[in-house]
Amino acid sequence: MSGLFIAFEGVEGAGKTTQAGLLESALLKRGYRPSLLREPGSTRLGEYLREYLINGAPLSPTAELLLFEAARAQLMTEKVAGEPDTGAVIIADRFAGSTVAYQGYGRGIDLERINWLNDFATGGRYPDLTLLLDVDPAVGLGRVKGRQLSLGMLDDDGFDRFEDADIAFHDKVRRGFLDLEDKTASWRFIPGNHPIEYVAAQVWDAVCGLLPES
Amino acid sequence: MSGLFIAFEGVEGAGKTTQAGLLESALLKRGYRPSLLREPGSTRLGEYLREYLINGAPLSPTAELLLFEAARAQLMTEKVAGEPDTGAVIIADRFAGSTVAYQGYGRGIDLERINWLNDFATGGRYPDLTLLLDVDPAVGLGRVKGRQLSLGMLDDDGFDRFEDADIAFHDKVRRGFLDLEDKTASWRFIPGNHPIEYVAAQVWDAVCGLLPES
Repeated sequence: MSGLFIAFEGVEGAGKTTQAGLLESALLKRGYRPSLLREPGSTRLGEYLREYLINGAPLSPTAELLLFEAARAQLMTEKVAGEPDTGAVIIADRFAGSTVAYQGYGRGIDLERINWLNDFATGGRYPDLTLLLDVDPAVGLGRVKGRQLSLGMLDDDGFDRFEDADIAFHDKVRRGFLDLEDKTASWRFIPGNHPIEYVAAQVWDAVCGLLPES
Repeated sequence: MSGLFIAFEGVEGAGKTTQAGLLESALLKRGYRPSLLREPGSTRLGEYLREYLINGAPLSPTAELLLFEAARAQLMTEKVAGEPDTGAVIIADRFAGSTVAYQGYGRGIDLERINWLNDFATGGRYPDLTLLLDVDPAVGLGRVKGRQLSLGMLDDDGFDRFEDADIAFHDKVRRGFLDLEDKTASWRFIPGNHPIEYVAAQVWDAVCGLLPES
């Protein structure tokens, strides 16, 4: 077996970035070669679009969706395409599932169209394992707010395009993630409302059985 | 009859921008309210993406295509959506046909997928009239080069992502435009290798019959 492709999904503040970083460290310690990617981002185009998606002018739902897919298409070409070497592990902080959850369930864009676009942008290459870190959006957004307060970042503009949306939006997004987990064999549900080390142990439990020899 | 939506298409240096500007002037003089749009561009997102498309890092064909569609989707929402008032005339310097010609015929992306994306980004709203200004790409690129020389702009980076492509690419693009013109009732063929005033007269001839009372 060659390399592995893992994605973390979940609402704002679910712990994705923290857990992706801990998984990277755990893999490095065991001799694997992880590469940590974030969506949108991790390419020059991806970071350029991320900046606009977070801080730019208002976007139509269709344009927003197409920007995420453009960033994803470039990420596939630069960072995911080709057969990864043995020992290589790609860890993505969000992936195509976020588009289904946010733009589909959240914004209400037709799911068939979103699936078409995800297939087009990814060329049909999806993660071998997707870890859904599930928390109540009220809890997750509370964490994001606490983080920003502690960094002195919180003001009128302290929340971005998605953090700013109301709880009803985030509840729909969570529902989208749960439906995806329910329907997709390669997704694993991990309760995110637990201490970091406890969640990390669950993540490792899901990952370790899939790892090739390092 | 209410407003009118007109697009100019053609290879680099075919005269689109010049003719779009002349048509705008002619319409203003006659009491219409033209708005001149360029693709990608004419919105904050569109101009942000245009900058990257012209000067940014290399792009995968799929990502490039999705960027054009994102810019188009935002343009539709901000500038084209809704029923235009009587007397309003939208003039677009390039539109969805360019995506078929450049990304389809030029880059070789499947035309059905491009049509799907054009329908998605435009919501099915296409120009009432598309004017194809046809020139041999060698002539058009020669015009672009002459323009840049006269502006003192020509150096290693004087050509952008598309102007830089070889003549074979631009020949395929031209073929795409000619096929579209051939198959689409709302397209008009206008030979572009003539004096500006002569071409402008042909443009006016195509437009004037469609104009509402001003």
